[in-house]
Amino acid sequence: MSNITIKTLAEKLQVSVATVSKALKDSHEISGITKQRVRKMAEELHYVPNLYASSLRRRKSKTIAVVLPEVADSYFSLAINGIESIAQQKGYHVLIYLTHENYLKQEAILKDFQSGRVDGVLMSTTAETVDHCHVQDLQASGIPIVFFDRVCEEIETAKITTNDFECGYIAGEHLIQQGCKKIAFLSISSSLSISNKRADGYRQALADHQIKFKATDIVNCKNDEAFNLTLIKKLLQSKNRPDGIIASVEKLNTTIYLVCMDLGLNIPADIKVMGFSNQVSAPILNPSLTTITQPAFEMGAAAAAILFKALEKPNFILKKESMIIPSVLTVRDSTKNV
Amino acid sequence: MSNITIKTLAEKLQVSVATVSKALKDSHEISGITKQRVRKMAEELHYVPNLYASSLRRRKSKTIAVVLPEVADSYFSLAINGIESIAQQKGYHVLIYLTHENYLKQEAILKDFQSGRVDGVLMSTTAETVDHCHVQDLQASGIPIVFFDRVCEEIETAKITTNDFECGYIAGEHLIQQGCKKIAFLSISSSLSISNKRADGYRQALADHQIKFKATDIVNCKNDEAFNLTLIKKLLQSKNRPDGIIASVEKLNTTIYLVCMDLGLNIPADIKVMGFSNQVSAPILNPSLTTITQPAFEMGAAAAAILFKALEKPNFILKKESMIIPSVLTVRDSTKNV
Repeated sequence: MSNITIKTLAEKLQVSVATVSKALKDSHEISGITKQRVRKMAEELHYVPNLYASSLRRRKSKTIAVVLPEVADSYFSLAINGIESIAQQKGYHVLIYLTHENYLKQEAILKDFQSGRVDGVLMSTTAETVDHCHVQDLQASGIPIVFFDRVCEEIETAKITTNDFECGYIAGEHLIQQGCKKIAFLSISSSLSISNKRADGYRQALADHQIKFKATDIVNCKNDEAFNLTLIKKLLQSKNRPDGIIASVEKLNTTIYLVCMDLGLNIPADIKVMGFSNQVSAPILNPSLTTITQPAFEMGAAAAAILFKALEKPNFILKKESMIIPSVLTVRDSTKNV
Repeated sequence: MSNITIKTLAEKLQVSVATVSKALKDSHEISGITKQRVRKMAEELHYVPNLYASSLRRRKSKTIAVVLPEVADSYFSLAINGIESIAQQKGYHVLIYLTHENYLKQEAILKDFQSGRVDGVLMSTTAETVDHCHVQDLQASGIPIVFFDRVCEEIETAKITTNDFECGYIAGEHLIQQGCKKIAFLSISSSLSISNKRADGYRQALADHQIKFKATDIVNCKNDEAFNLTLIKKLLQSKNRPDGIIASVEKLNTTIYLVCMDLGLNIPADIKVMGFSNQVSAPILNPSLTTITQPAFEMGAAAAAILFKALEKPNFILKKESMIIPSVLTVRDSTKNV
């Protein structure tokens, strides 16, 4: 589906471009019947008025958008730096839009892009997203989209990810090697492919090392700090509490440490903790935190470089450009065998 | 100075609007002499072609911009949440632009806003900014600007700040009360008013407690991690090293801790450390960090609320709306008297 313009509507309806334009502006020069026909066709073809058409004729918007769940996570702030390092070379502005994990907000933002505000979009989807029609609509309007980190599997385009399954496996295996027998995995969403892949890797590690897995070992956190605090506290107060814990996103690390402090649990003696994180404070935490560190800057830069290829060559096939950039395990004191 | 439009140019030159429009588009219908006159006047009056004029006639852009040095600092990520909490109520999009402390980038971003991309601007300036013409130009084009945290003193508009002088004083006095005799203050810029106010407060505290101050006690860090690491290492290796240190921005906290680890200095026994910071990890650092915590969310929300007042009432006087929201000292182990 290509970009639907006034010209497309005029051709389909076999009337002039001026007639369509006037009908859409509700001009008194056009009959009621014609107006109805035009509006119906516009609706059927998902025509979006291009408010900035005159600007686009003269120049592109010279702007790309980055759509993200949040910036408090250091993965995203580093990825932005990677994106900007490329955009700067190309003379482009970068606009950052935050969804705060809200699906409706993401939908509204992408809808807004159809009017030509930006030339291309880099995106990491919300944990809530299950329906991807709004992404497909934006693609259909001719705006290239590249996913990084949190991808929508269903959408055909370039996806820049890290080796999430393998990292889940490495995390699980590391805790087993440090002596853990009962390992909990804190998930952030059951609809995010990266969260599921990390969980699958962790389960595979348990299976390969004959550690029994129970469905309750995967703990579903939310985008709600107070909820997570209560949930993790309950987990660590339970009779059969885990001796190892993997946080699948950065912000859960702080919550785990705070709960352990509160309950008087010693990390790593009572419980070993590790997390997926790019936080610079990992080495200075009490105790220093073992992390799976993602190539955040590199992933942002790679995603931007591919998007610019698509902006420069109109027939560029994005979906052939997907890329996996591996993460690294950094062992620190929080998983020490004491 | 109000917004200069094609109509303004036409009136000044006593020609028709169509003539100006065609002359600016280099139309063959207009004589060379007229084109020259139009271009000269356009330049003199700083006319910026409004690319989105047609969009603005039909509706405002329904978008505000937030211009920030970075998002890796938790002050800014919390302030964004405050801003978005208000923008959401008003049905507005929030665009985030990062300057990375680069003055030229800030200038280019503000120049771009003159073409009508956004309805209003919230801004925290770069540490590099010394010349504010680009801010005045944007104001002159009729786009309201509200500053928060890092303000430009010279610009007449609403400024949302915290009690920076008082907090510098509280920080200095706290370290003196904990037994420090030689306190260093890590500054991030000598041109940022918030940095200078905090430093002035700290100096006042020293003076009031008869502690001798030397110019070298204020250490000028940069937006360069490697540079700061070397500088702080040199400071803490010096014969006459400080027994107390105040970090005026969040990212310096991690650098100080890393240097102390590297040099085998014990915090707080060898050196007491405190910082201006909103980082959630402060209580779980080794040792937990004493902070001056800014009302980041509240400052963002207040700045946005004032901007929307200006957007809703065209004759709203912004400069009367400045506001100071106080910060809070939270004492933790990094400044313990041992």
